[in-house]
Amino acid sequence: MNTKRKGENMEENELVLLTNLEHGDSYLVKVVKGTARVEGLGVLDFDKLAELNHGDVYQIASSRFFISKPTLSQSIDSLERKAQVINQKDIPLILYHGDISNARLVVEGGAGSGFLSCAMATAIKSPGRIITYEIREDFARFARKNLERLGLGEVCDIKIGDITRGIEETDVDTVVVDIPNPQDCAAHAHKALRPGGVFISYVPNMNQIEACVQAMKDAGFRNISTLETLQRNIVVTDGGTRPDFSMLGHTGYITMGYKIG
Amino acid sequence: MNTKRKGENMEENELVLLTNLEHGDSYLVKVVKGTARVEGLGVLDFDKLAELNHGDVYQIASSRFFISKPTLSQSIDSLERKAQVINQKDIPLILYHGDISNARLVVEGGAGSGFLSCAMATAIKSPGRIITYEIREDFARFARKNLERLGLGEVCDIKIGDITRGIEETDVDTVVVDIPNPQDCAAHAHKALRPGGVFISYVPNMNQIEACVQAMKDAGFRNISTLETLQRNIVVTDGGTRPDFSMLGHTGYITMGYKIG
Amino acid sequence: MNTKRKGENMEENELVLLTNLEHGDSYLVKVVKGTARVEGLGVLDFDKLAELNHGDVYQIASSRFFISKPTLSQSIDSLERKAQVINQKDIPLILYHGDISNARLVVEGGAGSGFLSCAMATAIKSPGRIITYEIREDFARFARKNLERLGLGEVCDIKIGDITRGIEETDVDTVVVDIPNPQDCAAHAHKALRPGGVFISYVPNMNQIEACVQAMKDAGFRNISTLETLQRNIVVTDGGTRPDFSMLGHTGYITMGYKIG
Amino acid sequence: MNTKRKGENMEENELVLLTNLEHGDSYLVKVVKGTARVEGLGVLDFDKLAELNHGDVYQIASSRFFISKPTLSQSIDSLERKAQVINQKDIPLILYHGDISNARLVVEGGAGSGFLSCAMATAIKSPGRIITYEIREDFARFARKNLERLGLGEVCDIKIGDITRGIEETDVDTVVVDIPNPQDCAAHAHKALRPGGVFISYVPNMNQIEACVQAMKDAGFRNISTLETLQRNIVVTDGGTRPDFSMLGHTGYITMGYKIG
Repeated sequence: MNTKRKGENMEENELVLLTNLEHGDSYLVKVVKGTARVEGLGVLDFDKLAELNHGDVYQIASSRFFISKPTLSQSIDSLERKAQVINQKDIPLILYHGDISNARLVVEGGAGSGFLSCAMATAIKSPGRIITYEIREDFARFARKNLERLGLGEVCDIKIGDITRGIEETDVDTVVVDIPNPQDCAAHAHKALRPGGVFISYVPNMNQIEACVQAMKDAGFRNISTLETLQRNIVVTDGGTRPDFSMLGHTGYITMGYKIG
Repeated sequence: MNTKRKGENMEENELVLLTNLEHGDSYLVKVVKGTARVEGLGVLDFDKLAELNHGDVYQIASSRFFISKPTLSQSIDSLERKAQVINQKDIPLILYHGDISNARLVVEGGAGSGFLSCAMATAIKSPGRIITYEIREDFARFARKNLERLGLGEVCDIKIGDITRGIEETDVDTVVVDIPNPQDCAAHAHKALRPGGVFISYVPNMNQIEACVQAMKDAGFRNISTLETLQRNIVVTDGGTRPDFSMLGHTGYITMGYKIG
Repeated sequence: MNTKRKGENMEENELVLLTNLEHGDSYLVKVVKGTARVEGLGVLDFDKLAELNHGDVYQIASSRFFISKPTLSQSIDSLERKAQVINQKDIPLILYHGDISNARLVVEGGAGSGFLSCAMATAIKSPGRIITYEIREDFARFARKNLERLGLGEVCDIKIGDITRGIEETDVDTVVVDIPNPQDCAAHAHKALRPGGVFISYVPNMNQIEACVQAMKDAGFRNISTLETLQRNIVVTDGGTRPDFSMLGHTGYITMGYKIG
Repeated sequence: MNTKRKGENMEENELVLLTNLEHGDSYLVKVVKGTARVEGLGVLDFDKLAELNHGDVYQIASSRFFISKPTLSQSIDSLERKAQVINQKDIPLILYHGDISNARLVVEGGAGSGFLSCAMATAIKSPGRIITYEIREDFARFARKNLERLGLGEVCDIKIGDITRGIEETDVDTVVVDIPNPQDCAAHAHKALRPGGVFISYVPNMNQIEACVQAMKDAGFRNISTLETLQRNIVVTDGGTRPDFSMLGHTGYITMGYKIG
């Protein structure tokens, strides 16, 4: 069941979202035994929390928090970030065009803070797996921590390695790279992919697109396309609806191509 | 396995993508017995096709077609459309913010041509289910045909009904509506959702956002936000990279809110 | 002549732009006699400056400043701002669609900080005039100061008055309003305009557009249109060209219509 | 006066706008003697038209046309186009950042269909002049025809010549080029410009921006910036306000820099 039934308690190690009923701020919390410090919330009495259920209100000092199962975007929002992260306006497009839901094996190049790894590990269906190459041990460790925080450590394996040196896996459905030189990975990706498999790169500069597209063509990819997305919030107030004055002007370009022919 | 091994043949009723190796045009084809007409390709000899495998080339007259497993976006692209469809720049955002991968039960209002139904049915994990309310029998029939074409008929149940009259399901993870009057569904959605569940509406007009957001507030939804997305292709030619002159100026606004408190 | 010839000195009260040759920061300075304090530059010895000419370098302490005639956008950039100002991405469109270059008489509603008044007073040709209605004395005073700073006080007359109560002028080429309730001015504008004259409003909210367009239709305006503009800088570095991450998400919508019929 | 007074007739060779009172379509017409064919309107009886005045209605068959003085944008809209033209969303920005209103001498590279020439010739104040270099005689002829149509032939001189070979003029306020290789003109422009003068290029590709910016830096330009603009119409109908589905995805990038130092 989605939610606990009457009489059922929270499970140990379960992730719950605590949303401040006054301000709407949310905190992702793992249910443990005893007491523990949670950043932004102070020391929580988890034994008390464990007696409650989804839909209940948990009181911390004078603040009231609503307990619920977090959605993917709420979970991602709550992760710690170290490296530059892939924006949440781009993650959905990579999941979609990378066809992660249908994949059995996805290879990722560049773990960053692990945000995309977490999203892909959530979208992929059992027994699908994500293999992530990361050259920096500190990034790998950080990304693994985020994956484990969301209980996704089994699905995504972050290994230390340089994806521009080669891809060990074969029969791969999708290769996604968030590295500065995706062109150095295109031929490896083509070799590793299944027939019809997708290669996706995410880069901020036009020059990187050019180098990547050329390498993709040289490697044999077809139906190559690049897209950029602008996303804007709409502010709705009584009698005054307008786009938000604040907006991100640019993140990265998503380039994709298929192993066809 | 993702792809057929040596010696394995195509399965009956399997969906394959045939991509013209010269032009890159793709056709989604269901492997049947004997011969059958496929729109855009003429009459195909499926017995000959069935002897081939993913990665092979299938010749029709003088055209050569590459055989591969279609991705979700390739499948959606190949569907027939009747009603106005949700754009492929917006579907990924609805899948993501609606947390369809993690859902057990999703209720959809308005089937249209079934594009979003197909995408959600692909993203949701077994034993998750999509229940779609559609008031028009002809749209329901059309959407069902598209679902069945992609082999997703078991996952998504399209029933004739008006979602603004009430939602029968309970403990629902996500309610997504693509109807002109989402405000008339907000209270029903709030009642049907699990604690923390998400309500998403997709409408083209600012006035519809306003009415919907007000109804969502009245119904008790929290952390309500609305976003719009602009997507543009980048054309990469030798020494001449630029955004595409052609671009869609607008599709729909995505409004979302959570059943919190 | 555009620039001073050899032997010519700077004129008193002439406006010059001093651009820091190291950082590129610019300061608009009026050439006076003796010494005076200039914000951001400290106390300047104008007698020394007056001996120099456009194209010369003026040294202040260890900083070197290039002397030139300011362009309109450089002048506007250097003005002080009090109220919310019309963005420099929108001013050009108002000048253009308001046909200020060809106008003899322009009526403006809402002076704000006087930025648009300054731009229109620069674009209009002699003996054209701008009449600006401003209900707040403090805004009027502030805008007048900016106009006088740019030597445009003769061209634009800011008077205290509520443009929604009526427009005294007749045979007006263009009426431009930057007020919260342009709808209350549409009928007055229609009466004041010459045949074929343009009414332009600048508002941030969709609801204001709706009210304004309805009032414009009711007043008899034709060929009504509304446009919004997004502007983004492109960052060009060696081998790394991309849109700026920073961008303004929204300013105002420009609605225009013609007194035709 | 802006408009004819009672008793005054239309002047010979005067340009008037005839707007269809039913559909809103507009036609720019030069008042001649006798009858003449006007594209889209058929043969007009100008003697009859000449007896009317701005604000009057002129009947052609069963269609009624409103007579008014055209605005700049209405005039530009009515011009014939041969080469690719600079978009009306970009012309205002070039006029503004090129400070055409304040200029005495502007040099343009690439006449195209003469749209920008016409707009600059309208914005510049007497006795300012535009000198346009155009390598193709057919484009020059076409642009001249458009300038003369708007009565601007005296202000803008289109001469056959390659602006990348050198600029004869000196003490130029602004150099604007709409050519594929603006980089080849940057040093010439720097030499021709007055101190503080502006160089503006308009190109569709990122690669062209890069080459141009590099050449501008090499030539000594400062405070170089590049901007792109997206413009979208807003459709306002009763209770249904939304951005237009149709939109131009890209036109050209505007790069500017100053002769400072």
